Amino acid sequence: MSKRIVIALGGNALGASLKEQMVAVKETSKAIADLIEAGHEVVVTHGNGPQVGMINEAMSALHDIKPEKFGNIPLSVCVAMSQAYIGYDLQNALREELAMRNINKPVSTVVTQVVVDKDDKGFKNPTKPIGRYLSDKEIEECKAEGIPVMEDAGRGWRKVVASPHPIDIVEIDAVKALIKENNVVITCGGGGIPVIKEDKHYKGVPAVIDKDFASAVLAQKLGADSLIILTAVEKVAINFGKENQQNLDELTVCDAEKYIEEGHFAKGSMLPKVQAALEFVKSGNDKTAIITLLEKAKAGIEGQTGTRIKS
Amino acid sequence: MSKRIVIALGGNALGASLKEQMVAVKETSKAIADLIEAGHEVVVTHGNGPQVGMINEAMSALHDIKPEKFGNIPLSVCVAMSQAYIGYDLQNALREELAMRNINKPVSTVVTQVVVDKDDKGFKNPTKPIGRYLSDKEIEECKAEGIPVMEDAGRGWRKVVASPHPIDIVEIDAVKALIKENNVVITCGGGGIPVIKEDKHYKGVPAVIDKDFASAVLAQKLGADSLIILTAVEKVAINFGKENQQNLDELTVCDAEKYIEEGHFAKGSMLPKVQAALEFVKSGNDKTAIITLLEKAKAGIEGQTGTRIKS
Repeated sequence: MSKRIVIALGGNALGASLKEQMVAVKETSKAIADLIEAGHEVVVTHGNGPQVGMINEAMSALHDIKPEKFGNIPLSVCVAMSQAYIGYDLQNALREELAMRNINKPVSTVVTQVVVDKDDKGFKNPTKPIGRYLSDKEIEECKAEGIPVMEDAGRGWRKVVASPHPIDIVEIDAVKALIKENNVVITCGGGGIPVIKEDKHYKGVPAVIDKDFASAVLAQKLGADSLIILTAVEKVAINFGKENQQNLDELTVCDAEKYIEEGHFAKGSMLPKVQAALEFVKSGNDKTAIITLLEKAKAGIEGQTGTRIKS
Repeated sequence: MSKRIVIALGGNALGASLKEQMVAVKETSKAIADLIEAGHEVVVTHGNGPQVGMINEAMSALHDIKPEKFGNIPLSVCVAMSQAYIGYDLQNALREELAMRNINKPVSTVVTQVVVDKDDKGFKNPTKPIGRYLSDKEIEECKAEGIPVMEDAGRGWRKVVASPHPIDIVEIDAVKALIKENNVVITCGGGGIPVIKEDKHYKGVPAVIDKDFASAVLAQKLGADSLIILTAVEKVAINFGKENQQNLDELTVCDAEKYIEEGHFAKGSMLPKVQAALEFVKSGNDKTAIITLLEKAKAGIEGQTGTRIKS
């Protein structure tokens, strides 16, 4: 049976450098094409951690050379650029993979803004590290200017930004139009360009939106049947890494909430994935979220592997 | 009468820096919204000279700092990034302008690849300057590596790239789908990401496609009625800058070709605009190209100003 599926690609689906990306998107495209070949309607989202970090670093490097000529390029603009940086390669690889399977479906990337609440508590307590490690002098400068910095896992100090919760997708009509006309759409790249709404104006904010939460909002807005969240493990586990680790095939909303409370899922890693899955399945009836490996996406949709969270 | 119009924005419609861009897109959006409010179906293209130069320079600066970590980012990828860099601001400003006029039309940007011929003679003789001025050492290095460099108008040496002729638009189906569903589309930014077709694969090439020629191909593929090419003068002139300068209201294909032969239009400036206009109007019946100022776009479509080239 044909399903409408939002598939959220994790970091390993794209690689960290451009060279890695150009190889990774080929394998990624095979996994996506498997779903399309099986008759499903697929919408693709992806992360952008290393990519937006690289672009942000490049813009800082340029600013360091010629501060008067090139002003600071805001993070929201770097996110926009990362969408095209990734989308260009990904749409190409997927188009090619589909063509090789004689599937005539256009693939396109939409520059996508995602709305967050200006009063989101994430803004008061930025925790998402971004860009390069700072020198002692830079740390002092940031502190003096009120730019939030944090010690990142013992490796040095970095700027930190907010990771507010997504609430709406500005270009949702474009995504719907493209789906209606048989296009595979790549959207909400890197969680979307973070914007707040001020009357009729969307204003970029220095933040990075979690791509799994953005994907959950997208899947809701599109009335998708399934949300596939790809990650580095085949199944969600409780007691992860311990002797009594237990991999889960199915996870009820109730159990998921209990396990979250018990602290089974790592912050910034499995926790937001399970939370995003929950947000989606709780948004309607007959919604399924699947958390699994990239190469298991099709098997996951067919109920053969992965962890299924159902409404 | 409602027309399908492709409007190609020139450099002054976007400004050179991000700060300038954020102001410029507001005025630009007014001119585009005027056409939409008059009932026309509008597709927007734009140049990217200063923007892709900035991005290319930033990527070089990053590569200079950490060559081992960050490989060279190819020009085609910089063009892709410039599409989102500009599209994000432009789609936002236009959406806001339409909302203020109570026009409910979504605006979106499609990451667009434009196909060129791998044997295009432009590749044998690159002439389009790109990026920053080079040091003597860099010039020698480029020459040794076979990277084409050129003296740019007495201001120093720069890398030069090819400017091949566009022949096809990869994401044309996405553009058509969006138009069909009432979207204003921003596409072919910076002339499009330059690619060559190798079997089923599109491969990026180090080139910059002229945005007016790309817009002419787009207008053809979309069956547009009109192509508006915006520039820094209200009308095309013969004997430009001389005592006997004559501004033209109408220009027949025949006269345009004669004037080109007589050298009336400056290379890299008015010449490609007139040539692109000619390519479009010669592609079908009842096609009109208009060359004029941004703020005169609507008056141009209404036949009140600008230079009209008709088939």
